[in-house]
Amino acid sequence: MNAEIIAVGSELLLGQIANTNAQFISSQLSEIGVNVYYHSVIGDNGGRLKKAIEIAESRADLIIFSGGLGPTKDDLTKETLAEHLNVPLVFDENALEVIEQFYKNQGRTITENSRKQALILQGSEVLPNHHGLAPGMMLQKGGRTYILLPGPPKELEPMFQFEAKPKLASLISKGGVILSHVLRFYGIGEAELETRIQHILDAQINPTIAPLASDGEVLLRITAKADSKEHAWNLINEKKKEILDIVGKYNYGVDDDTLASKAVNMLLHHKLTISAAESLTAGLFQSELAEIPGVSGALVGGMVTYTKEAKMKQLGIPKELLDRYGVVSSECAAGMAKKVREKFGTDIGVGLTGAAGPEPHDGEPAGTVWIGIAIGDDVATKKLQLSGLRNTNRIRTVKYTLSYLIRLLEEKGYSKV
Amino acid sequence: MNAEIIAVGSELLLGQIANTNAQFISSQLSEIGVNVYYHSVIGDNGGRLKKAIEIAESRADLIIFSGGLGPTKDDLTKETLAEHLNVPLVFDENALEVIEQFYKNQGRTITENSRKQALILQGSEVLPNHHGLAPGMMLQKGGRTYILLPGPPKELEPMFQFEAKPKLASLISKGGVILSHVLRFYGIGEAELETRIQHILDAQINPTIAPLASDGEVLLRITAKADSKEHAWNLINEKKKEILDIVGKYNYGVDDDTLASKAVNMLLHHKLTISAAESLTAGLFQSELAEIPGVSGALVGGMVTYTKEAKMKQLGIPKELLDRYGVVSSECAAGMAKKVREKFGTDIGVGLTGAAGPEPHDGEPAGTVWIGIAIGDDVATKKLQLSGLRNTNRIRTVKYTLSYLIRLLEEKGYSKV
Repeated sequence: MNAEIIAVGSELLLGQIANTNAQFISSQLSEIGVNVYYHSVIGDNGGRLKKAIEIAESRADLIIFSGGLGPTKDDLTKETLAEHLNVPLVFDENALEVIEQFYKNQGRTITENSRKQALILQGSEVLPNHHGLAPGMMLQKGGRTYILLPGPPKELEPMFQFEAKPKLASLISKGGVILSHVLRFYGIGEAELETRIQHILDAQINPTIAPLASDGEVLLRITAKADSKEHAWNLINEKKKEILDIVGKYNYGVDDDTLASKAVNMLLHHKLTISAAESLTAGLFQSELAEIPGVSGALVGGMVTYTKEAKMKQLGIPKELLDRYGVVSSECAAGMAKKVREKFGTDIGVGLTGAAGPEPHDGEPAGTVWIGIAIGDDVATKKLQLSGLRNTNRIRTVKYTLSYLIRLLEEKGYSKV
Repeated sequence: MNAEIIAVGSELLLGQIANTNAQFISSQLSEIGVNVYYHSVIGDNGGRLKKAIEIAESRADLIIFSGGLGPTKDDLTKETLAEHLNVPLVFDENALEVIEQFYKNQGRTITENSRKQALILQGSEVLPNHHGLAPGMMLQKGGRTYILLPGPPKELEPMFQFEAKPKLASLISKGGVILSHVLRFYGIGEAELETRIQHILDAQINPTIAPLASDGEVLLRITAKADSKEHAWNLINEKKKEILDIVGKYNYGVDDDTLASKAVNMLLHHKLTISAAESLTAGLFQSELAEIPGVSGALVGGMVTYTKEAKMKQLGIPKELLDRYGVVSSECAAGMAKKVREKFGTDIGVGLTGAAGPEPHDGEPAGTVWIGIAIGDDVATKKLQLSGLRNTNRIRTVKYTLSYLIRLLEEKGYSKV
């Protein structure tokens, strides 16, 4: 099955937003083995859209539209496709009821334009919209599959993932199942990881294994096709074990895990509290932890000690230590970790100091970073030499710190969760 | 002039990255009045690329390519276009010298593949690459303009903005100039801003005025066409004054300003120091300030007091105050601002507390936020009622705090810089 994704919306052509819908759909399609050969973006213009549909039909058998299902005159994706395919639009009673109820709850009178959102291509399967009013749809016609999705990502993403994708997967596997599972690695480069598991990559048939690098992380997607879910999971788990036997040290999580969610869940599970003292990252480490709901069970708080003076006065790092070793040093990072842990009375203390760039800092070149982590009375430190821009260096420092924290906790006998 | 942007790269079709190059180029083209009607994405495949070029030629007179100029076998944008247009590829001596020097400096032997990056379409103007090895190019042929740009955004963006765009602008204006200037607003919605300046929008001819909303901000782009730079600037400045007379209160900056850069520059200019105590944002406010190089002249540091206990013990907020008003209150935000200012000995103290969500916090619904800002002995507080997801609420809080800080400083007589 070869796919083309057509995004409809003038805001894309004006550069107001990036086409993240096409990215999301593509990455989801790759999980079930569908090849995407084209993305197209068209403005809110019926004539140009019609021509784009003709082009897509000449080169794809799965055509996925995003956008143009809303209530305004500019929204004309389904109208254009209906005309092109010579399929009438009919009201979907469920969708109409949802829209009418929505207006009723708001105490507003329903408009004709709003009703039009409940129109679907006759003969299509409705894809319910749990985050908005316009339903999606999936239509088989002339040997092709057409899928229409609403434009807002918060509506499109769950609709594609949970409604459209399973239907596509069962179409492709003809009754069988396709499952995929992502292994997430940090602290190893893509090239090195591929080299280490080269024999497994070379021998892959089913499951297939696809490496992906993104933002300092490496992901391996394992995709299995089988006659039952159970069988597919068995295939995946066998392959997963083979891989982790070799590079398990760098594996921090699976699927939608993030370094922050993984670290926070470990802390919560083992009832460990944490505080941090940050210099170059200036609060970004703590802020990353705070992205995870429920973190207040683990994160007590911490300090941002941006200046040398703040490190001395607020945190109590001795002036002699800073004068002797500098603020960008193992000693300073260790001192910050210990002091903040004591001050906030937590199980774990983290200290981060370095030269974010673009200028050197306290005699150390841009990109030099020291991480200190105190777990109980033990303090470990680690040096990073980064080569990115100022903010890339700050973000990488936070990611590395999270992966280092997970590794140190494991070494202390705290299991991953 | 009608444009199509063709991005070449299988990583886009696999969903590994979003097509931010097309977004960037589109937004740049809108500044000089070029209409973009299509974006296309094609994999690293010569046959499919050739067909995409044919389609683009049937519907656009400016065709811009991104990607596929690198040294590997997969990079075949210029090879494919050369064959299609029947134009030979020739070595550009300058580009070749840069590549040879690069290898020499690294002590490596140059490969034939690397040399291929210096090949250009005969008769094209070279667009120098100041951030990588592959030059871009611009070719006029058969009444059409073809522009080829490298894929990495850090190479493509400056090359398009500073090399290709001025050439296009002078092509379009036939010797005249097109200039554009962006006014940035915060704290006013797009609809309200448009309503307030409706008479100006309705009457626009030259300069044109285009509103854009993005991430809680509203932007107005003023674009003027004239026979000289000076004349274009005069047109822009007249219109700018008209607009700011009405909605100047919400204007925080221009062009590439950010709320953080604007606030930090004001602090540095007026030699003011700042500290912050953060609860729901957990360091994100301080981290945003720290994105700006040179911030250490203003940001001393601060605290993250995530738990109620940390607010009492570390910051010294009285238990009675928190019991009486709750941690999500004007009193708590004001107390945090005052206490952190005293503790860190800064001119300004910021206190942020609230319920980020998804759960209510201390009896207040998700999205309730209190901002406290102490400038000297004066403390101002402000309530926000946000409706986004947890992290959107945290980011919006930081943006609103920055704009509120700028406004309070102005009211105290500190000029914007």
